[in-house]
Amino acid sequence: MPLSEFTYRRRVTFPEVDSAGIVHFSNYFRYMEEAEHAFWRAAGLTVAKRGADVGFPRVSASFDYHRPLRFEDEFDARIRIVEMRDKVIRYECTLTKGDEKIATGTVTVVCVSRGADGVMKARALPPDIAGRFEVSPEAETR
Amino acid sequence: MPLSEFTYRRRVTFPEVDSAGIVHFSNYFRYMEEAEHAFWRAAGLTVAKRGADVGFPRVSASFDYHRPLRFEDEFDARIRIVEMRDKVIRYECTLTKGDEKIATGTVTVVCVSRGADGVMKARALPPDIAGRFEVSPEAETR
Amino acid sequence: MPLSEFTYRRRVTFPEVDSAGIVHFSNYFRYMEEAEHAFWRAAGLTVAKRGADVGFPRVSASFDYHRPLRFEDEFDARIRIVEMRDKVIRYECTLTKGDEKIATGTVTVVCVSRGADGVMKARALPPDIAGRFEVSPEAETR
Amino acid sequence: MPLSEFTYRRRVTFPEVDSAGIVHFSNYFRYMEEAEHAFWRAAGLTVAKRGADVGFPRVSASFDYHRPLRFEDEFDARIRIVEMRDKVIRYECTLTKGDEKIATGTVTVVCVSRGADGVMKARALPPDIAGRFEVSPEAETR
Repeated sequence: MPLSEFTYRRRVTFPEVDSAGIVHFSNYFRYMEEAEHAFWRAAGLTVAKRGADVGFPRVSASFDYHRPLRFEDEFDARIRIVEMRDKVIRYECTLTKGDEKIATGTVTVVCVSRGADGVMKARALPPDIAGRFEVSPEAETR
Repeated sequence: MPLSEFTYRRRVTFPEVDSAGIVHFSNYFRYMEEAEHAFWRAAGLTVAKRGADVGFPRVSASFDYHRPLRFEDEFDARIRIVEMRDKVIRYECTLTKGDEKIATGTVTVVCVSRGADGVMKARALPPDIAGRFEVSPEAETR
Repeated sequence: MPLSEFTYRRRVTFPEVDSAGIVHFSNYFRYMEEAEHAFWRAAGLTVAKRGADVGFPRVSASFDYHRPLRFEDEFDARIRIVEMRDKVIRYECTLTKGDEKIATGTVTVVCVSRGADGVMKARALPPDIAGRFEVSPEAETR
Repeated sequence: MPLSEFTYRRRVTFPEVDSAGIVHFSNYFRYMEEAEHAFWRAAGLTVAKRGADVGFPRVSASFDYHRPLRFEDEFDARIRIVEMRDKVIRYECTLTKGDEKIATGTVTVVCVSRGADGVMKARALPPDIAGRFEVSPEAETR
């Protein structure tokens, strides 16, 4: 059965926190990506199969920051698919700590094949990947 | 004289590149922030004066990725102020490598004071900071 | 009862892997530190209590690398105390993936108090911290 | 003419600083590696030629920390070759800020060829690389 969302739990590590005592804003993008990769594992997949000529670079990414995270805070990153087209998957990701909403992110990923020269060319999602995912019902009714 | 933009030159380092051979998308946010901090230094300022109770956390950040950067690529990050209000500065940042447009980012920063308990509260930009910057003419005529 | 060792399980994330497809050597030091911090949590402590004037900077750190780690590999970081003196704790840390020995690290940490000016001065380990830890029997019989 | 050392200048960036206001100890290993790569560029080389089947993984690395580095500090990383054998280069690296000695590191690198399966096998340094470097006279007279 295809999956449309996943919740990933994580604890803030020491070097992720800046000198103001809060998680550096760039690390939220890494948290969102970790949630995405855990989501793919939950679907029996990996975003980076060794030797595969298919890759998933990002075409855009954003975050809105509501409240800070601090050292050793435990939080949830809930990621869900809000759009899935031929070559593209778009995710939204909500970070929460208990009842507190911490941040909301979005990332758009394109499927590419990589030539021997390293040049990337957009291509349709392979069926064995596309078949494992579907758009979140939540997103469809907005 | 107030400044409205700055261009920062940087070379891609090894751990910034991922297993696909391109700069990890999260690092663009660090490049944009490095350009911002170099911009502040060019204005005779620092974003993180030791012992200061004023800070500049981010409320939102985004990037659109056009072309990849690779190991040892040299690129320019041109940052400019596109909005400046009482408590808020919004920047746009364009990454280019020679004539190639690599990526376009934006980040919105809020000025806060930090209490003894670490709690942050939005406040007006201090005059000695606000007086050093102005919105880019380019942004105003859009 | 004082603790002398801890095993921390972790999975390799995407940006930790370099363009050669293996975990960047600098990240092993972060893994060792994550294991140390999890060890402290298991002892009911935190290395960075908010507002505390006590800190634990590193005076030396090293790693020997035996085999590479790759994306999504799950591994164990077993950390143990091999020396504990007045102001200093020295740890050894072994990284393993199943039966494979991946790497062996060591880190020496000194207890400091931090003045209002940010200057750090070595001091004895506070009794409530020293009392929670002891040197690993394994280390003592070497 | 073969080179035996290089000095690389760098400024501390914001996310490299931890919540204690000092550069996180893991980043010193990245500074040492940046100096190494700048050294190779000064010799007309790159450690990671695209498409090359030769790589330079680390077999050991260490740092002794003498004084902290803080945000926006400018420092020099002087790296020099202290040993060069058939398959191995060992470097020492001294970090200084003005007259202050900040830290001393060492890293040992092995030359490998990488098979199609990603497996790495130690091999002799290619002559066009070995011919560009030599052991520092300073190291030889110790």
